[in-house]
Amino acid sequence: MFSINAIANHLSGLQIPQPLLATAESENAPIILSGVLLTFVIIYLSSKVGSEIARRLDLPPVLGELVAGVIVGVSALRLVIFPEGGFTASDSVVMSLLQMLNQLSPEAVNSVFAQQSEVISVIAELGVIVLLFEIGLESDIRQLKEVGIQAFVVAFIGVTAPFAAGTIGLMYFFHVAAIPAIFAGAALTATSIGITSKVLAEIGQLKSKEGQIIVGAAVIDDVLGIIVLAVVASLAKTGEVDITNVAILLVSAIAFLFGSILLGGFFNKSFVALVSKLKTRGNIVIPAFIFAYAMAFIGNAIHLEAILGAFAAGLVLDETDARNELDELIKPVADLLVPVFFVTVGARADLSVLNPMIPENRSGLLIAVFLLAVAIIGKVITGWVVFGIPNINRLAIGIGMVPRGEVGLVFAGIGTASGAIDKPLEVAIIIMVILTTFLAPPFLRIAFGKTEEPPANAELA
Amino acid sequence: MFSINAIANHLSGLQIPQPLLATAESENAPIILSGVLLTFVIIYLSSKVGSEIARRLDLPPVLGELVAGVIVGVSALRLVIFPEGGFTASDSVVMSLLQMLNQLSPEAVNSVFAQQSEVISVIAELGVIVLLFEIGLESDIRQLKEVGIQAFVVAFIGVTAPFAAGTIGLMYFFHVAAIPAIFAGAALTATSIGITSKVLAEIGQLKSKEGQIIVGAAVIDDVLGIIVLAVVASLAKTGEVDITNVAILLVSAIAFLFGSILLGGFFNKSFVALVSKLKTRGNIVIPAFIFAYAMAFIGNAIHLEAILGAFAAGLVLDETDARNELDELIKPVADLLVPVFFVTVGARADLSVLNPMIPENRSGLLIAVFLLAVAIIGKVITGWVVFGIPNINRLAIGIGMVPRGEVGLVFAGIGTASGAIDKPLEVAIIIMVILTTFLAPPFLRIAFGKTEEPPANAELA
Repeated sequence: MFSINAIANHLSGLQIPQPLLATAESENAPIILSGVLLTFVIIYLSSKVGSEIARRLDLPPVLGELVAGVIVGVSALRLVIFPEGGFTASDSVVMSLLQMLNQLSPEAVNSVFAQQSEVISVIAELGVIVLLFEIGLESDIRQLKEVGIQAFVVAFIGVTAPFAAGTIGLMYFFHVAAIPAIFAGAALTATSIGITSKVLAEIGQLKSKEGQIIVGAAVIDDVLGIIVLAVVASLAKTGEVDITNVAILLVSAIAFLFGSILLGGFFNKSFVALVSKLKTRGNIVIPAFIFAYAMAFIGNAIHLEAILGAFAAGLVLDETDARNELDELIKPVADLLVPVFFVTVGARADLSVLNPMIPENRSGLLIAVFLLAVAIIGKVITGWVVFGIPNINRLAIGIGMVPRGEVGLVFAGIGTASGAIDKPLEVAIIIMVILTTFLAPPFLRIAFGKTEEPPANAELA
Repeated sequence: MFSINAIANHLSGLQIPQPLLATAESENAPIILSGVLLTFVIIYLSSKVGSEIARRLDLPPVLGELVAGVIVGVSALRLVIFPEGGFTASDSVVMSLLQMLNQLSPEAVNSVFAQQSEVISVIAELGVIVLLFEIGLESDIRQLKEVGIQAFVVAFIGVTAPFAAGTIGLMYFFHVAAIPAIFAGAALTATSIGITSKVLAEIGQLKSKEGQIIVGAAVIDDVLGIIVLAVVASLAKTGEVDITNVAILLVSAIAFLFGSILLGGFFNKSFVALVSKLKTRGNIVIPAFIFAYAMAFIGNAIHLEAILGAFAAGLVLDETDARNELDELIKPVADLLVPVFFVTVGARADLSVLNPMIPENRSGLLIAVFLLAVAIIGKVITGWVVFGIPNINRLAIGIGMVPRGEVGLVFAGIGTASGAIDKPLEVAIIIMVILTTFLAPPFLRIAFGKTEEPPANAELA
């Protein structure tokens, strides 16, 4: 009916158009998917090995996930790396494998690398959003209100003490100029809610008075940290503080947190009524995630943080009758998303900054020792400002506030990008973030004393 | 200690470096996250509204999700659109909102649009991977083996009949040249496993003999479709069929499916033994997803499909003692991921190709009527080639094979990109895919007869 020759003739007359960018992207789609799948396998394998080893060493599993991330990340095996560190696809073992399997050009593999990294980054963000949603569901709004004043005082001291001590110390002892000193001081302010709340959940202390003060204070100091960031960034950009901007941020933060809790009163009943009317699959989990993601979006849109919105959504839904079912349904989702966050946090931590053999690290290391001391002492003291609650474990509260995370690295990143801070100071901030993050979990466990081993499927264990 | 002036002086001397691409990307990270969160809210809201309405009209819920996708997608509200259709950020309501909220430059918003679209696309792919994993878990390997021969015959006829009839018909009745006719014929071959198996699950027929024949045949014709694609693509590129390449594909497909099932025998016991030793959260779900994603990766890497790997993984794990627990754990994960797939399938379907007011659609519409007839008849007849099983619902099997999906659109896409097919033929293929996809679910339900209403949380309902 038709011969190969006829087809060949037909083809020779074809004008094969230069593929558009969009077409190129969709042609690479299966390869991007391959990269994401392989990265997931690496993340899950390493996180499970890490958390199981940590558990057997009587350490918090999340520490195992962080260390597993370090091992598969930029510091060691380089199986999970991101372009932000200045890496290209050729630095990534996964990308080299995909390039070989699919005979990709260097440009194509770099584009695949950028896109799969973006996908993993966003899924990691969804991981910490789901974690905070779950922590919100596990938290009790009444108990949080009871310790609200104490949490606020802990947060306030925990922000101002390290900020002031860090900034002044850097200027006087290390002769750092004002702007970089302020940046570094600001990087000392915000506790990592994700790490601290995960450890609390793992050791079964999330619902204790201490646990609720820590979570409440971590949420508040995150907001304070964002405001400090706005102040410092506008100082660095214009030399002045944009009071209007800061006021808007402050008001919207307060309006958001209290508004969502007040609104929760209404939403309680309508949520359960809605869920009971739905007849298709996902009748509980989909409405719950619509609410959580919408709140996370609003939190992000008003320049607060997505995780604060998710936490507020969890607090609200904790008040509904559907909470027990929801607790069960969210677990496997969290189990699959949360490790992506912790492993990538570990994977991004470049431990080469700790190496004193590299000359440019040396001055940074000295500053790092100082920042680390301020970071730890400035938070540990907050346990002793708690008043009105007898027999409270003050050391545990203080240690619970120690881990810094994302926000500290954001400060370092913005500072470096704007040229406000130099390499040694950046190194020092990164070391401070890494060490507070890795040291706090085991010490928090010690501070709370040995607790009974919860079974594998226990609540949030 | 330091004055604003000192800071301003300090800053005036700063060299603010041109931000690197990586830095620009990480600066946009919260905005990409915002886009993803908002898109999720839109997808979940529309999918739930759509599936609930479909349920009340006694139609399969997945049809409601597809239609919901059409409404929020490129054909109507344009809340969920993708750059592949030649769209830019200014076409997207979500992106326009984000641009306004964050005062983004047109370049920045286009970059955010491209990246958030990529993230949603990959998550949709993960959705259909998880769906096929779940379908594999629900399928019974012994029953599939029992109907294996029948499934193969159904698949073989269901591929060859529409391919031959479509190609020859286009050449004789419509005077289409050989290569485009072959492309269009090839686009008629592969059944959409995702849509057909979801409908089967929804009407409680997945485990029936008919259901297992349909799923088995859909898996086999997917493999056959990929081989046809390899043949057609190499014909179009070089005018010759690369026999080695096709043979490798065929052998690796067979080796993969049978190998994974044989390997499953070993894996059964070690999986349960492993799971019982794990003591941290996610002890079942993480190993299961490591297996599913690894198999999906291998399926993708050997140029088959990721969903085939996930299906095989599900089949294997269905044999383990952990299956009942796993069934429960995978449900909320599937509930959150699968709708992303179906809504984006609907959102990408550009119904404007159905509009006869657009002149360039008219010749396409005539061809589309022909292709649609061949697509339906060529698959419906397959029910009557089933032998050796008395009292089987032949019409249901035939209709179950009707929905085309991804693979058909991939053919149209590759054909158009390579210049092998022209606009009217592309339009006709897209119409055929859309109509078979949307018509099959209600007719499949009718063919099986009215079944009892399963409760909201029934198995896969």
